Amino acid sequence: MKVKDFMWHEDMKVSELVGDLSQVGFQSVELAKAKDVIVKIKKNNAKVFLTFTSNMVTSGLRGFFAQLVEVGIPNFLVTTAGAIEEDIMKAIGEKFDIGSFDADDVELHEKGINRVGNLMINTEGYMKFEDWIVKALEKCYEKKKRWSVSELLKEFGLMLSDKSSILYQAAKKDVPIFCPAITDAGIGFHLYLFQQKHKDFIVDVVADFGNILLGTSFDDKKAVIALGGSISKHHAILATLLNGGAEYAVYMTTAHKSSGSMSGATTQEAKSWGKVKDESDIATVNGDVTIMFPLAMIAALDELKRENLLDEDYRLPKKEGFLTKEGLLK
Amino acid sequence: MKVKDFMWHEDMKVSELVGDLSQVGFQSVELAKAKDVIVKIKKNNAKVFLTFTSNMVTSGLRGFFAQLVEVGIPNFLVTTAGAIEEDIMKAIGEKFDIGSFDADDVELHEKGINRVGNLMINTEGYMKFEDWIVKALEKCYEKKKRWSVSELLKEFGLMLSDKSSILYQAAKKDVPIFCPAITDAGIGFHLYLFQQKHKDFIVDVVADFGNILLGTSFDDKKAVIALGGSISKHHAILATLLNGGAEYAVYMTTAHKSSGSMSGATTQEAKSWGKVKDESDIATVNGDVTIMFPLAMIAALDELKRENLLDEDYRLPKKEGFLTKEGLLK
Amino acid sequence: MKVKDFMWHEDMKVSELVGDLSQVGFQSVELAKAKDVIVKIKKNNAKVFLTFTSNMVTSGLRGFFAQLVEVGIPNFLVTTAGAIEEDIMKAIGEKFDIGSFDADDVELHEKGINRVGNLMINTEGYMKFEDWIVKALEKCYEKKKRWSVSELLKEFGLMLSDKSSILYQAAKKDVPIFCPAITDAGIGFHLYLFQQKHKDFIVDVVADFGNILLGTSFDDKKAVIALGGSISKHHAILATLLNGGAEYAVYMTTAHKSSGSMSGATTQEAKSWGKVKDESDIATVNGDVTIMFPLAMIAALDELKRENLLDEDYRLPKKEGFLTKEGLLK
Amino acid sequence: MKVKDFMWHEDMKVSELVGDLSQVGFQSVELAKAKDVIVKIKKNNAKVFLTFTSNMVTSGLRGFFAQLVEVGIPNFLVTTAGAIEEDIMKAIGEKFDIGSFDADDVELHEKGINRVGNLMINTEGYMKFEDWIVKALEKCYEKKKRWSVSELLKEFGLMLSDKSSILYQAAKKDVPIFCPAITDAGIGFHLYLFQQKHKDFIVDVVADFGNILLGTSFDDKKAVIALGGSISKHHAILATLLNGGAEYAVYMTTAHKSSGSMSGATTQEAKSWGKVKDESDIATVNGDVTIMFPLAMIAALDELKRENLLDEDYRLPKKEGFLTKEGLLK
Repeated sequence: MKVKDFMWHEDMKVSELVGDLSQVGFQSVELAKAKDVIVKIKKNNAKVFLTFTSNMVTSGLRGFFAQLVEVGIPNFLVTTAGAIEEDIMKAIGEKFDIGSFDADDVELHEKGINRVGNLMINTEGYMKFEDWIVKALEKCYEKKKRWSVSELLKEFGLMLSDKSSILYQAAKKDVPIFCPAITDAGIGFHLYLFQQKHKDFIVDVVADFGNILLGTSFDDKKAVIALGGSISKHHAILATLLNGGAEYAVYMTTAHKSSGSMSGATTQEAKSWGKVKDESDIATVNGDVTIMFPLAMIAALDELKRENLLDEDYRLPKKEGFLTKEGLLK
Repeated sequence: MKVKDFMWHEDMKVSELVGDLSQVGFQSVELAKAKDVIVKIKKNNAKVFLTFTSNMVTSGLRGFFAQLVEVGIPNFLVTTAGAIEEDIMKAIGEKFDIGSFDADDVELHEKGINRVGNLMINTEGYMKFEDWIVKALEKCYEKKKRWSVSELLKEFGLMLSDKSSILYQAAKKDVPIFCPAITDAGIGFHLYLFQQKHKDFIVDVVADFGNILLGTSFDDKKAVIALGGSISKHHAILATLLNGGAEYAVYMTTAHKSSGSMSGATTQEAKSWGKVKDESDIATVNGDVTIMFPLAMIAALDELKRENLLDEDYRLPKKEGFLTKEGLLK
Repeated sequence: MKVKDFMWHEDMKVSELVGDLSQVGFQSVELAKAKDVIVKIKKNNAKVFLTFTSNMVTSGLRGFFAQLVEVGIPNFLVTTAGAIEEDIMKAIGEKFDIGSFDADDVELHEKGINRVGNLMINTEGYMKFEDWIVKALEKCYEKKKRWSVSELLKEFGLMLSDKSSILYQAAKKDVPIFCPAITDAGIGFHLYLFQQKHKDFIVDVVADFGNILLGTSFDDKKAVIALGGSISKHHAILATLLNGGAEYAVYMTTAHKSSGSMSGATTQEAKSWGKVKDESDIATVNGDVTIMFPLAMIAALDELKRENLLDEDYRLPKKEGFLTKEGLLK
Repeated sequence: MKVKDFMWHEDMKVSELVGDLSQVGFQSVELAKAKDVIVKIKKNNAKVFLTFTSNMVTSGLRGFFAQLVEVGIPNFLVTTAGAIEEDIMKAIGEKFDIGSFDADDVELHEKGINRVGNLMINTEGYMKFEDWIVKALEKCYEKKKRWSVSELLKEFGLMLSDKSSILYQAAKKDVPIFCPAITDAGIGFHLYLFQQKHKDFIVDVVADFGNILLGTSFDDKKAVIALGGSISKHHAILATLLNGGAEYAVYMTTAHKSSGSMSGATTQEAKSWGKVKDESDIATVNGDVTIMFPLAMIAALDELKRENLLDEDYRLPKKEGFLTKEGLLK
């Protein structure tokens, strides 16, 4: 393929841009390839593990992840405890603010504001979360004493009513959410306090390993779409590896392979799993997920929609009027 | 401003996406801000220094830069010698190939292919360039013996006929191209050989410093849009500083400020020039320019077009049929 | 402090270099500061949470971490499941190889070699690990049925005899190892298989949250030394936050703050905890931990040794002959 | 080679640390390899192009570069105009300050302080430089009217008397300094003003391309040690390429190859030049040069000293008492 001079024309669509980017160079080529791999994954009916880190749920990608569940992209989600907590906080009405990377942290502390990059969370939000989670745990405990993490998260999802909530949509669509480090956030503290009162309350992380393992088989085609790194990415790779490896992999990250970290691991290594057939099945995009993922995914969704490969019953914002001027759901 | 759940809808436009990104988080917020600053720059009639590195001209951004000159975005261009050379190579018919970052370099060497990231340049292309530049220098020499770099580059531009060429469009629109390290590419070798034959042929870099300096005054509003780092970025900042500093600055780069390099320098430092009035006049976007710049710029162009702030006589690909299905000019 | 011309002299010591680096610039200044903060932490008897990711245990830093436990630097360790697994693999005799970042992954796969950056692990090693862990779990199960993770890891440590093992030294010195995502490695699979045979075997992650929380109090001075990012770093910060925040923080990472990830979060945010008194209590070093950490830590150890602030009973390689020419323990 | 458990012992030397790092992993392995390649380069009498960016001369590495010239490491230097300017500023008595990356830039501006990362330059320093350079140019002009850049820089060096000055040592040892973008700093402004008064004063950059080209031949073994990126790195690679390519290459940078920039280009591409014989002749180290370069170079110097491969007449700080407590020369 040749490098082609890129040109703007008025009212360019995202899908047109992504198409053109395939012939620009450097990361733009990888991004366009990521879109192609995602479309291929769905056309070939691979089971999709979508992984993301908690800061992406702090961001507005949260609603996008929920929508992706709704339209049938992922079969499994893997994330960290902070993501669970913040999805619930948003579902029960908390709003996060856009701020600055260079904010005065001492001043923020005095105002009871917590900073995650250029996003701001009010300490109050954690109080509301506390009220909700304590009641939720009581309800779960009434049902049974020993819970795997994904069971617990589904139960939480069923208690929510926000259509932009990842937990809500995942529960509704029966997409399991795996969270191998469920105690690593405020929710860990509440689980601990609850267990102090109810010694027979058990969160069984080992059982959940069985759940992710048995979620797919050697015979299933499998795909990992990993956004950012951390244990979310590692856990999905591990689960597919134990079932013979994934056929497809798309990694998006700001990390680089030079430090040997999981966050920076590229899809080249996916070839060492022995199931990736060729270069057209993998893509590693280096860059900020808040930009790279919407770009590639929007173009993929437009194409999948045209080919009738999205779930029929999803919310069609335009047609059915779910999208207001502010982009929020009615 | 609040974080808002991002949602896809069919056939989303780039401008809609960039609008939504302003409420997503992390670099997406900075990107949306970059678009706002670019629009503000043009509305306030600031003189724009657009700087880029040679690898961007290796990429398909080359045609976009030419188009931006055509629609009247930059008043000055600053770049490196490789950019000049490759713009000419493309203008005289050379095509570059899209390849892989992980290509076998020993094999490429045997095939006479030069790799720039995931882009490939045939050694043959340099032969064609040699033929062209030798003749071009003869023609210039006939006119006079002592040339400033920007004069020479304008002369080259007038000898080209490719509408997607940066040099062509810049010459046509009288936008000076500054290249403080003109010998740092194959062109340097050809200049040297030419000077061996014509000892009185002089490329006067010092005179060009006067040209960039006198290009604007203390009273002009000035803006720096720096893509990547290197001396291109530094030279534009220097030129504006000597005229009292720029009012507006947009930097896009993959480098980080932690190493103290010019490439990683942020627009925060622009505040130290004393002319930046507030945060709404600067934006630093961290990421690959081949994706970040088209995204922000497309959204800015759509808005500037609506407000009739683009040059009237530019090629309107859609209306006038310049854009074929393949996005190439007729 | 002034920038000073750095000069080499023969047989320069690491501590001399780190001293000089404080006046060089950019990350060298941050590195020298990290050493100062570490010394201050120990002088002020703060409780130290040392966190690291599993790739560092793949590397030769593993023996260094064990030594740091031995000399009394950390009071708590926080890491991921891969780190546990690889420490045990090494303790029972497995050797890892140094290879290349650009290795042919398809070829490696055929040879049964797993790549982590430029380090190589033989698949066979995992078999040996399986034999060991199955027996270890049986022994634990005989003692009791319900284990917190840190209890289990201490029990494992007591079964080992390798002085360079992190688990061994931590068990001997009673330094708890927290691992909030214990199932996220091959060990998770073995725990799952074991639980299939013994349904009443429970790994209680919630109880361990109590352990890390009660490990320190509001009144203790607390310090976080976070190497790399991921949940290891986040968990230590969370544990100190719930006890009023850490007074000291040293972060070393290749990640940058621009993506809003935990890996890239800087110690500036530590100020927002309200307990950091001034700039001299925090340091963020950007760079590869395999180089940055030994540099700063060696200089800190030399100084702490001179001030008699290291545990008396630690192995003194030179004096007591533990260090052979190859640097291995007798 | 096997991964080996790293262990501290008291008063560890830098050369011992670098030796151990070869068996740690990730960038530590690359760093140790860089030291090996540097030693090999000197043992094989290759002609060395040492390149660096101006921010490294802002830092304390400036004195180290001067010392390296003195002991005979580089045969050619390639750098940018800012480096020339700041070396002279320091040589005539200006001191730079260590500050913070997070300094308040508006406040700095009011105080007349210019920030380069965490280093600070007083505006006054530029006034002193102006006085010096104006006189220096007058003296040069009296000698002749047309100067290549490297001739001019040698003349400047001969006018200085600071043993820690790069220009001084390079002039004394007859090591040419190439600076393809000589106008890209304050010095460019002074050259311009000078030329306004003396129209026949010419800075001939084209002639200097001949100088760097003829500095080595096809038959010489050639090595590029590139610190940071930019045109300094590119120019040295270009000069060796036109003479058949370099046999050895060591690159140190914080940039990554994913953006296709020269700064991030790795030594893998050096293989495509066709002269690199094997992996043991190249090393790419990812990290901050202010730490990585002293580490690798100190270990190399210790080894070269033992093998009597350093110039005999260099300053031996320890023996001859040049090094005071403050590390400055008497």
